[in-house]
Amino acid sequence: MSRYNSADGERRSRFERARRVRDMLRSQVLADDFGGDFPPEDQLTREYQVSRNTVREALTMLVSEGVLRRRRGVGTTLVSSPLTRVYDRGRGFADSISGGRQRISYRTITLQLVPSVPMLRRRFGSAEREFVFWERLTILDGEPNATWSSYLPGQLAAPLLTHPRRENLGLDEAFAELPGVRPDRTRRVVQARLADARAAVLLGVEPDSAVLHIERSIYAHDGSLIELGYGSCRGARYAVAYETYSRSGAADESTTTGDPYPPIESEGDQFGVT
Amino acid sequence: MSRYNSADGERRSRFERARRVRDMLRSQVLADDFGGDFPPEDQLTREYQVSRNTVREALTMLVSEGVLRRRRGVGTTLVSSPLTRVYDRGRGFADSISGGRQRISYRTITLQLVPSVPMLRRRFGSAEREFVFWERLTILDGEPNATWSSYLPGQLAAPLLTHPRRENLGLDEAFAELPGVRPDRTRRVVQARLADARAAVLLGVEPDSAVLHIERSIYAHDGSLIELGYGSCRGARYAVAYETYSRSGAADESTTTGDPYPPIESEGDQFGVT
Repeated sequence: MSRYNSADGERRSRFERARRVRDMLRSQVLADDFGGDFPPEDQLTREYQVSRNTVREALTMLVSEGVLRRRRGVGTTLVSSPLTRVYDRGRGFADSISGGRQRISYRTITLQLVPSVPMLRRRFGSAEREFVFWERLTILDGEPNATWSSYLPGQLAAPLLTHPRRENLGLDEAFAELPGVRPDRTRRVVQARLADARAAVLLGVEPDSAVLHIERSIYAHDGSLIELGYGSCRGARYAVAYETYSRSGAADESTTTGDPYPPIESEGDQFGVT
Repeated sequence: MSRYNSADGERRSRFERARRVRDMLRSQVLADDFGGDFPPEDQLTREYQVSRNTVREALTMLVSEGVLRRRRGVGTTLVSSPLTRVYDRGRGFADSISGGRQRISYRTITLQLVPSVPMLRRRFGSAEREFVFWERLTILDGEPNATWSSYLPGQLAAPLLTHPRRENLGLDEAFAELPGVRPDRTRRVVQARLADARAAVLLGVEPDSAVLHIERSIYAHDGSLIELGYGSCRGARYAVAYETYSRSGAADESTTTGDPYPPIESEGDQFGVT
């Protein structure tokens, strides 16, 4: 093995190896390589050609990330496979994951009119005097998955304030029921952030856990903005996946050899620039 | 204002308002609404129709996120506009941001052969016995922006080990120079995580800061995997933006009214599903 060792000291070197094993194990969890059964330490020691201490160090990192759970007498197990959310055309959250309609529920926390402010007027490009502010939780398999705070034009979204299912309603359903509203284009800006105190409580995670922050702008067919939303998605549970091609027409010809994530048909998706 | 107040207590209510103002201010920073000059507190108090204490609470949250900086005698200023990275076809990092070639440099930390492990063999679908492991830093305007750890097939990537510019080399340049390697399709899986000790040192951030973790798989035209990479991108500095359309042909017809991010031409980009 000596030809593979860098000149670093042994301790740092072990930490480096543990990080590499951690990254590869996390990949395997994301790709569902283990099918729910996390392999025992000695198998990992063999497969990754590292010491048991290195494997343990890698596992400890994944425990602290919330990917693995370690319990006395049970050993190391998967917390749950993270949900890899793929954004593709015209499908809301519930329709984009397998069995979604049954697995997802919503909880409305706040639903009220708020006065307009210059920033909202600028974004929505309208003289709208009030906006509907809608804060809600999306729950997947009984576990909080994300919190969303949405601004919707007041006149358009006013029916939501008295909607019979307003306590358990998703945005895609809401849009389907609001008269004259057809979402067309969605822009998302994704960042990593720490959960603030409120998001941590709502998501059931420690304060200062990592969350995927999504700023979402949904536009109607006439180009007008119909939602500006801020989402905080649980870091260890949520991943966003997407593909790009380096040449024209590749979408039709690509093969997926060795790829655990086969591409789907979704022509016309597009990226924007700042 | 009473019709806009929920039934919550006053303190919680102020925290809620501060969170809303924070989200909208962060949006404005991302969209470069302020052009480098962050507005004074009294302007924000007026614009957002909230108390000065609420504005201060929102600003404090943005300071702790690393978006704003507060200095005695200077006031509250922008740290820097976050870099919004848009992935579109065939452009490497340096070519995807304005003036990129001049603004970006690289620093190689580790570049060595490592033995194959089952996980890599499975992903790369090859009998490759060794891989090139390449850990490097991307630096934007003199500030560390991301660390990347890449695995490349040993035979293919061996020339990198003795490349004359191996200490300051980007992946896109490397691929352009390796014989017979043309990247075709790139899949990225994005998660939020906390920076580990090493990533924090390399990125120049506090340990346990939020980082955007990207798992990247680059495939060649024949469908074979040519890079498996793990990136940790500074949370407050880095955002990923992308757009989706809800109907066929929308990419050609969409308008951008009110959108601070005009779409670009990049037909054929595609999303995958797990």
